[in-house]
Amino acid sequence: MKLLMTYDYGPQAIAEIRALGHEVLTIKENELESAQHDLSDIEVLVCYNPFKNLDLDAMPALRYILLSSIGIDQLPAEHVLARNLVVTNNRGGYSKPMGEWIVWNLLSAIKNSDWFYNHQRKKEWKITTDVLELVGKTIGFLGTGTIAQEASKRLSGFEVQCLGLNTHGQPHEAFDQVYSAEDKLLLAARCDAVVIALPQTATTEHFVDQTFLEHMKPDAVLINISRGAVLDESALLEALDQGRFRSVHLDVFDQEPLPKEHPFWAVDRVHITPHNSWISEQRNNRRFDLILENLRRLADGRQLLNVVDVRRGY
Amino acid sequence: MKLLMTYDYGPQAIAEIRALGHEVLTIKENELESAQHDLSDIEVLVCYNPFKNLDLDAMPALRYILLSSIGIDQLPAEHVLARNLVVTNNRGGYSKPMGEWIVWNLLSAIKNSDWFYNHQRKKEWKITTDVLELVGKTIGFLGTGTIAQEASKRLSGFEVQCLGLNTHGQPHEAFDQVYSAEDKLLLAARCDAVVIALPQTATTEHFVDQTFLEHMKPDAVLINISRGAVLDESALLEALDQGRFRSVHLDVFDQEPLPKEHPFWAVDRVHITPHNSWISEQRNNRRFDLILENLRRLADGRQLLNVVDVRRGY
Repeated sequence: MKLLMTYDYGPQAIAEIRALGHEVLTIKENELESAQHDLSDIEVLVCYNPFKNLDLDAMPALRYILLSSIGIDQLPAEHVLARNLVVTNNRGGYSKPMGEWIVWNLLSAIKNSDWFYNHQRKKEWKITTDVLELVGKTIGFLGTGTIAQEASKRLSGFEVQCLGLNTHGQPHEAFDQVYSAEDKLLLAARCDAVVIALPQTATTEHFVDQTFLEHMKPDAVLINISRGAVLDESALLEALDQGRFRSVHLDVFDQEPLPKEHPFWAVDRVHITPHNSWISEQRNNRRFDLILENLRRLADGRQLLNVVDVRRGY
Repeated sequence: MKLLMTYDYGPQAIAEIRALGHEVLTIKENELESAQHDLSDIEVLVCYNPFKNLDLDAMPALRYILLSSIGIDQLPAEHVLARNLVVTNNRGGYSKPMGEWIVWNLLSAIKNSDWFYNHQRKKEWKITTDVLELVGKTIGFLGTGTIAQEASKRLSGFEVQCLGLNTHGQPHEAFDQVYSAEDKLLLAARCDAVVIALPQTATTEHFVDQTFLEHMKPDAVLINISRGAVLDESALLEALDQGRFRSVHLDVFDQEPLPKEHPFWAVDRVHITPHNSWISEQRNNRRFDLILENLRRLADGRQLLNVVDVRRGY
């Protein structure tokens, strides 16, 4: 098939794809706008987010979009649905580093990392007794997908209880108990830490709202590594203003980059990271491995991995 | 028996000890010097470090010292050996929070925590690709005691390899492979991170010396949570000066508190914490549980837990 790739995985990678019988054209996403290529016979688009600079109407042969991201919010969903394009994502491709990131955030929260950073900057030797342990704590995951699973797996040696939550409370071996979405307030009340690991969809917008936050323990830890829209940021700011939460760790926001004047920057207990949790030195290898496997399946006419339900949103 | 306790565990705790048939006198360590008590019939001393203010010669009936610490370097060893006093320590009592601390340090190191703290202070949204994952890494523990075991147990879900080292290379189920002390340079060369978890003894002084540091990978992580003397600090400073190590996490030092003018404070890649790794909200409960168990065993005439070989040093 004829492929357009908008990221350059290097000559070795291209050779592996060509060996499968595919034709490959590579144009980087930031060079698409000015590119003078005839894309009318491209059948497969391997990309992250080229949609601002790419006219899909000029690609009548397109049948497959292989996204390198997990979230699909960048996708022109109506166009994709109208043309019945097959979309796959990188589900699971960043879950291991993100699982580690969640445990890191949990440990930073209970070990009071800010104390140590702030005192080191001042060259002050000052022990603190406000350091907790994870033993015996209850960690709740909103979402039971691969990110939550990888985090829970990494927490298995810590003597904690891991709870999950999904639409219908479908049990999963990675979690001691799984709540349904309608029982979310019961989970909120039980947890010492809540981790938001839900996909962004029409039904998960502001899933963590004022009522949810009010039901959480006042000294709980809150971590969001999925999408900003899943959390009502105004309600969170109000809760923080009331002195609630031991600490809040946000890697994602309604508006990214987070504007310099955003009040989150000024709250001591908020830890801001720039949508960085998915990064690791393995990211390109692991992402390319999945792309290559799907291109192999395309060449063989077999079922693709990670096909996305665009209407459902994940 | 007649006990002197130098920490006040509260009336409930004292009542539990008295219920075992013991007589209890409580004088806090910082009040010992001015205390006007006859200690001539005290048989058991439950303490952390009262030895500067306490004249053991004035305690001829003393037979047991129950230390609330793990390290015994504060002990007047010659006096204790000459009188053949039985000493127990709090081995294992801080190992769970310290195991967590080690994993926290490892994750902070590979996730590049400094980057995020420094940019948040400046309200700067700046993603970094210098973030690693633990998957596939090799972690080496100098020492295979309960602290290393608890850390290794907590790393069991992280897809890492955990190596250990002890005197004769005695295998232990918590470690994939255990090196003997004489093979320490082989371990040094293999590890992406080395954790110092050795007791301070005559033979472990500067166990991690210039040669050991030179054999470590140039971008490795080094963590010390045991005692400063186990590490040659001057050799470490030199190695840091040569640009070696991704980051170094020191909770213990030759001189504590670390003096304000110490060069460690000025090295970006050094994370300094004030001998804080053992702290958790469970510390008093867990420490008291062990003391109470040993006082029960004393009352029953049974073998004590955690008896220390004072000559060996642990």
